[in-house]
Amino acid sequence: MVDITSVDFNKNNELVILDQTRLPGEEKYLTLESKEDVYVAIKKLRVRGAPAIGIAAAFGLYVDVRESEAETTDEFKEEVHEVAEYLKKARPTAVNLAWALDRMTDKLDSFDGTVAAAKKMLLQEARNIRQEDEDACRRMGENGLSLLSKGMGILTHCNAGTLATAKYGTSLAALYLGKERGYDFHVYADETRPVLQGARLTAFELSKADIDVTLICDSMANQVMKNGWVDAVLVGCDRMAANGDGANKIGTNGLAILAKEYNIPFYMFVPTSSLDLDTPTGDDIEIELRDGDEIYKMWYEKPMAPEGIKTYNPSFDVTPAEYITAIVTENGIVRPPYAENLRKIKEAGAQREEHGVMPALSGLTRKND
Amino acid sequence: MVDITSVDFNKNNELVILDQTRLPGEEKYLTLESKEDVYVAIKKLRVRGAPAIGIAAAFGLYVDVRESEAETTDEFKEEVHEVAEYLKKARPTAVNLAWALDRMTDKLDSFDGTVAAAKKMLLQEARNIRQEDEDACRRMGENGLSLLSKGMGILTHCNAGTLATAKYGTSLAALYLGKERGYDFHVYADETRPVLQGARLTAFELSKADIDVTLICDSMANQVMKNGWVDAVLVGCDRMAANGDGANKIGTNGLAILAKEYNIPFYMFVPTSSLDLDTPTGDDIEIELRDGDEIYKMWYEKPMAPEGIKTYNPSFDVTPAEYITAIVTENGIVRPPYAENLRKIKEAGAQREEHGVMPALSGLTRKND
Repeated sequence: MVDITSVDFNKNNELVILDQTRLPGEEKYLTLESKEDVYVAIKKLRVRGAPAIGIAAAFGLYVDVRESEAETTDEFKEEVHEVAEYLKKARPTAVNLAWALDRMTDKLDSFDGTVAAAKKMLLQEARNIRQEDEDACRRMGENGLSLLSKGMGILTHCNAGTLATAKYGTSLAALYLGKERGYDFHVYADETRPVLQGARLTAFELSKADIDVTLICDSMANQVMKNGWVDAVLVGCDRMAANGDGANKIGTNGLAILAKEYNIPFYMFVPTSSLDLDTPTGDDIEIELRDGDEIYKMWYEKPMAPEGIKTYNPSFDVTPAEYITAIVTENGIVRPPYAENLRKIKEAGAQREEHGVMPALSGLTRKND
Repeated sequence: MVDITSVDFNKNNELVILDQTRLPGEEKYLTLESKEDVYVAIKKLRVRGAPAIGIAAAFGLYVDVRESEAETTDEFKEEVHEVAEYLKKARPTAVNLAWALDRMTDKLDSFDGTVAAAKKMLLQEARNIRQEDEDACRRMGENGLSLLSKGMGILTHCNAGTLATAKYGTSLAALYLGKERGYDFHVYADETRPVLQGARLTAFELSKADIDVTLICDSMANQVMKNGWVDAVLVGCDRMAANGDGANKIGTNGLAILAKEYNIPFYMFVPTSSLDLDTPTGDDIEIELRDGDEIYKMWYEKPMAPEGIKTYNPSFDVTPAEYITAIVTENGIVRPPYAENLRKIKEAGAQREEHGVMPALSGLTRKND
């Protein structure tokens, strides 16, 4: 397994994150000591990937209040709520941020004991959130791996890896587990313009884990498939509608069309928390548009497009269900008919929820980025 | 029409090129005064696009020998041959470079007159080469425009524009002629990773010509098509096999597959000199592989992929004939069955050749880049 951790609460009781804005040039870990530190780290994308953000926020809440001098539990509760509200504002669209913080404060609200015990409980709850995410990713990886064989060529897009989660990632989890068991995958990583998550993060974490990875431009995926080098396409998912249409990083839908053209299986990895059964189809998913700066400025030392050029920069696209060979969740692999089978897997997820696993939040998105 | 010229021999009898390596940040024209100047300009890609390279070399040859102190025409011919051989080495794979220089020396070899008259003849021949390229591009543009309607949305890839030729370009010629006639095209320009010819050159020259252009990443072409914004895809061609399979900038084949998926016409612009009837199919076209530096280093101020990462960087791909709606040449529009109709258009081209037009060089490639 890759020896990097996006968020860690270490043996010295420190909250440590890997600064992803410096990757891959510099592998710098930051210790976050206050709510302000955590807020800035999330805001500036030093920690990214919705699960990782949720985990960082949960530990961050604890770190900020552990030195609290509150004399009563009620006073302490009030203080914790204030910090949680502050942290939620760091990235309002990141669903897991609010989810993780609400989970922490809900647990505290129903807690009856000393301030010291409450602090201990909060740390434990943050640890639970982290552990549950790791477990879910691992289960998703196991399910995904069951679809793959030794020596396969794999095409990936964006980063749905360990950097976005507690460990393993979603789609990349299958590759890490395969590595542990001697599968010799050959991975082709799309660089993923404009923000280059594939080049900067996926190529980085896979090569760190000693998995054979070849970086390509997005426009080269077709040639790699045509050469017969790809046996399966593995992608993450930011939000999936009830009919199986799945939103993911821009470029995913095009890849799915090409995969179908070449008869290559296309697998979408979807935590059940990203299954949004209240959204009937992909047409109902709004596509986030981002600033053109990302296309013509970011990463460049000299202008690579005329100044003031008009751009269109959708961050996501929706892959219609018909192009998805199978949907991989932590609770099992879903095959068509998706509408029916996704409902079943969601129910299974809800049952797990009672035992403390990430809830299935309808209408919300668990983002990879 | 756009007020930029890739190569010009101006009223002051100067050979002037636009330095394309500085685009789009800086619009700098360079005066080339010797064979060394011309050699370096071609070698360093300051002038690029096979037709433009051929034109620059032809004028460059003249510029270098115009001050020759040769006393006899034979002595002058020998001198000119030496300069031509020197210039050919600047970019050995650029077919038009050798073609243009051979045309100049062939003409000189059969010339019978004074040194002064020979010099004048060389200048005229360089002017002919330039004019013929402009005429061919214009005819290609006229043919292409006949396939388009006012207000259409157009998707382009790479740069097959005025910067690659004497004027107009190949596929972009249709857009310039349309602009002159009040067609209000909406152009979506793929940035064209890794070397960004779409962002740097196509977006630059179209916006200079006041044509509505929107820059997108290559991975966004699918979404633009899906949105219903694209009525036709226009691309260039570096070499076309006898069956209509066409090699062009990497990413073209994927676009063609997507265009078919959305029932959007896909037009490939092919000078008959790029029709290679001795190559039976696209399988016989070798794909040039280039250095990975282009992917992970070029244009970036901080590393955007792990150092030493393995890459795969094919510069071209081959679009199978079945995905091409029509092939646009300077001698007419070719529809399926391609094998039969391409032969006919090639013969028409050969007839034009007798009247001084760019010959159809079998087995060779007229590159856009």
